[in-house]
Amino acid sequence: MVYRLSDLARVAGATLRGNGDKEIQGVAPLSRAGEREIAYCAASRYRAQISNCRAGALIVTAEDAEGLEHDILICADPRVAFARVANALCPVPVVTPGRHPSAVIAADSEIDPGASIGPCAVIETGAVIGAGASIGAGAFVGARTRVGARTRIEARVVIMHDCVIGEDCAISPGAVIGGEGFGYVRESDGHWLKVPQLGRVVIGNRVDIGANTTVDRGALGDTVIADGVKLDNLIQIAHNVKVGSDTAMAGCVGVAGSAVIGSRCLIAGGAGIMGHITIGDDVEVTAMSFLKNSVEGPGRFSSSLPATNADVWAKNVGRFRHIDELARRLRRAERAIKQLLSGGKP
Amino acid sequence: MVYRLSDLARVAGATLRGNGDKEIQGVAPLSRAGEREIAYCAASRYRAQISNCRAGALIVTAEDAEGLEHDILICADPRVAFARVANALCPVPVVTPGRHPSAVIAADSEIDPGASIGPCAVIETGAVIGAGASIGAGAFVGARTRVGARTRIEARVVIMHDCVIGEDCAISPGAVIGGEGFGYVRESDGHWLKVPQLGRVVIGNRVDIGANTTVDRGALGDTVIADGVKLDNLIQIAHNVKVGSDTAMAGCVGVAGSAVIGSRCLIAGGAGIMGHITIGDDVEVTAMSFLKNSVEGPGRFSSSLPATNADVWAKNVGRFRHIDELARRLRRAERAIKQLLSGGKP
Amino acid sequence: MVYRLSDLARVAGATLRGNGDKEIQGVAPLSRAGEREIAYCAASRYRAQISNCRAGALIVTAEDAEGLEHDILICADPRVAFARVANALCPVPVVTPGRHPSAVIAADSEIDPGASIGPCAVIETGAVIGAGASIGAGAFVGARTRVGARTRIEARVVIMHDCVIGEDCAISPGAVIGGEGFGYVRESDGHWLKVPQLGRVVIGNRVDIGANTTVDRGALGDTVIADGVKLDNLIQIAHNVKVGSDTAMAGCVGVAGSAVIGSRCLIAGGAGIMGHITIGDDVEVTAMSFLKNSVEGPGRFSSSLPATNADVWAKNVGRFRHIDELARRLRRAERAIKQLLSGGKP
Repeated sequence: MVYRLSDLARVAGATLRGNGDKEIQGVAPLSRAGEREIAYCAASRYRAQISNCRAGALIVTAEDAEGLEHDILICADPRVAFARVANALCPVPVVTPGRHPSAVIAADSEIDPGASIGPCAVIETGAVIGAGASIGAGAFVGARTRVGARTRIEARVVIMHDCVIGEDCAISPGAVIGGEGFGYVRESDGHWLKVPQLGRVVIGNRVDIGANTTVDRGALGDTVIADGVKLDNLIQIAHNVKVGSDTAMAGCVGVAGSAVIGSRCLIAGGAGIMGHITIGDDVEVTAMSFLKNSVEGPGRFSSSLPATNADVWAKNVGRFRHIDELARRLRRAERAIKQLLSGGKP
Repeated sequence: MVYRLSDLARVAGATLRGNGDKEIQGVAPLSRAGEREIAYCAASRYRAQISNCRAGALIVTAEDAEGLEHDILICADPRVAFARVANALCPVPVVTPGRHPSAVIAADSEIDPGASIGPCAVIETGAVIGAGASIGAGAFVGARTRVGARTRIEARVVIMHDCVIGEDCAISPGAVIGGEGFGYVRESDGHWLKVPQLGRVVIGNRVDIGANTTVDRGALGDTVIADGVKLDNLIQIAHNVKVGSDTAMAGCVGVAGSAVIGSRCLIAGGAGIMGHITIGDDVEVTAMSFLKNSVEGPGRFSSSLPATNADVWAKNVGRFRHIDELARRLRRAERAIKQLLSGGKP
Repeated sequence: MVYRLSDLARVAGATLRGNGDKEIQGVAPLSRAGEREIAYCAASRYRAQISNCRAGALIVTAEDAEGLEHDILICADPRVAFARVANALCPVPVVTPGRHPSAVIAADSEIDPGASIGPCAVIETGAVIGAGASIGAGAFVGARTRVGARTRIEARVVIMHDCVIGEDCAISPGAVIGGEGFGYVRESDGHWLKVPQLGRVVIGNRVDIGANTTVDRGALGDTVIADGVKLDNLIQIAHNVKVGSDTAMAGCVGVAGSAVIGSRCLIAGGAGIMGHITIGDDVEVTAMSFLKNSVEGPGRFSSSLPATNADVWAKNVGRFRHIDELARRLRRAERAIKQLLSGGKP
């Protein structure tokens, strides 16, 4: 795509300073951008790179704009402006409708004529694929599952039967949606008895799901992922979890069964969310933390320990294992001091 | 399936009170169950929901049964009774024997006539698939691997060569069984030399394995998963691990190489198990904990920290990094107090 | 393969003692090795097993060699010698060139005549597959992606478009290379706006990647995995990460975006690496630790807590939540003691 700089200013919601007729056809980092490309400077610590930058245009804050001779777009948040410009210049490729001859498509599925079904994809009985949706190579869409318009299902994704995926979603390769929830009861002889997992996974619109992430179907009710949720790679969402709208989770997060997570939460990488708890809106959980109890939002919660020198750490861990004893000894010392201060003797 | 309530009482091992001829055809949660469905109340905190419940029948404890006008099944553990009833009313679909024409099946594999091979599945030379087993769409069964009777291999599962999967197992989509173990030695020039991984994965009967879980093959010996083990999603089982019968692990657990885990253990989500340790029978590890040393069972082990307000947490972490110094200062204070108490002066 | 023991001594870089003409055709553990097999004893704690060992030959240290009547190879590091011998006796099977008729291969891709393309594999437009490389069953190689000579891509691997995989790599089943990075900015209305992920994944030579591991493509620049890196299963490598040569990571590690990791690092299982930090060469991170800040190498870093009895643990965690208060109380006690020691009274 090629855009005039004045058009990009409009797309970005930014103020143009310089040659609005200049044609821009791509984005690049400050260090590599050429005269037909636009770059951005989001933080003043990168400001030094601007002087040598050969970009055709720059996106900067008003503060960083001072003294620059480049053609620039000025805005409050260059990262947002850049994302808008990049989406304009590098749009998601349009889907070419059609069915690859190697795909295995049930006769009674409903494939919109504007959808694309890739090689070796498998679409089972009663599945519904919306207009402009694409089903990647080797992906599997189970019986009666519905995939909304313009949703991209990438290669090797598995969506089991009776699930609902909204519109404008993107599901990355290897993700598994609608696998069996992990539900068992223990018989008196010690063996596990599987509890049938009869619910569905229901995913809203504009949801992104990362590579090899797993979202289990509900036991009796459904597992629900609301509109606008963004899940990174290798996340586990257990049965009956509810994730509120526009919540984002980074890689390797695990959410245990029946947890209810609010809207606009930010769950950082490697965090664990206990089962059966409720998390309010606008809650942040820091990386590698373990949210064990229900919390109200907004708020920021943490239990992670930053790594230090392993020898020092080992010493501290040894002390930690006796912290309860330490606290008791301190209490005794305080009592003795009180006694001494009051002039008493044992 | 349709059952008379008296038959369900027998299936559940529960006592019937009410109309044994009533026909029940499904299960549902208390809040949604209709007159042809059965629901259960496992904990008294849900007792309030019963009064409005329109279920055709309920499964309750003797205590919760008092005063109810519903047709009910009375038992000690409603969760177990419900699981039995649900398995009767919602059985796993029977496999339709046959081979999809798009499957790629080695001529010298042994596929039982009662097995089902899905579209785009690949079965390699010498593989053996038992009666009533199903191989899902796009699944891969490597050379000489044996899959037992009635075992369900879901879509896109990969089982590499020379592995053994028992009977009545269920392997969820995307799981990888028998990948190469992570075995290397460092050459004197600093490069890694791969150690050939020559063992197998041997999985017993009634084992369930979750979506995108990985179980590596052994280096010289085998990786062994005993009868009745249940593994959730996104679990890593490294080479030469042994997991004892009826042990269950929740999502995102990692088990390092050559760990030996006993029977009936419960490993909660996100826990890590150190390599080369031995864990006794009936050991529990709490969520997000790190079991670093061998332990005998029974016992419950933990090292997880529950998240709290991030600012408070940061302060505590800062202190933790000086806990060794804190302990030393306390020791000095105690000595000084002792001296003071004995009337001494420095 | 069959080797004379004298040839294996040469391969191993070890000193032969005994019958160099003996023919050896396999490897086995001490406990099971037969007369045509070679075993090794890496640590003196296994020394007791040697007396009953029926192996045709043994690899031992000079110390452990004393008094043995077996034919032996003596060396400083039996594990390295064994790995060399095992690679000779059990070589990786040679690839059989050819294209399975069920594979879907773009007409304008470049497949070396010496490469092997498995059943149901999909190779997209402009992809390049090198000599002796193998693409496993159902694997996906995206448009313009290059796979180097002798690299093994196992079943169900997904490599998205425009990536580069070097020579002599091994990518285990289910791994996803080049999925979209997790890059979003928040619009003023609270919705997430995707930032196009325009970079690639560039992987060097002799890189191994584990089952179901994910490596995201870069946002503007590339995600880079240098020569000789070894990644275990279920690892997440986020966009724009750089991993230095010969670094090894065990299972379930998560590396957040733009982290730069040095050469020859050892990241143990379940560890988390913060985004945008820099890690020097020869850094070790212990299992389940969270490296939050940049560190220089060499060095060993830890923040993991070993699990203990859950009741004791709960008590210590309770104290930990008041450690800041504990530290303040200790400070007050110290002041009071100082005052008392100097003879003062309040």
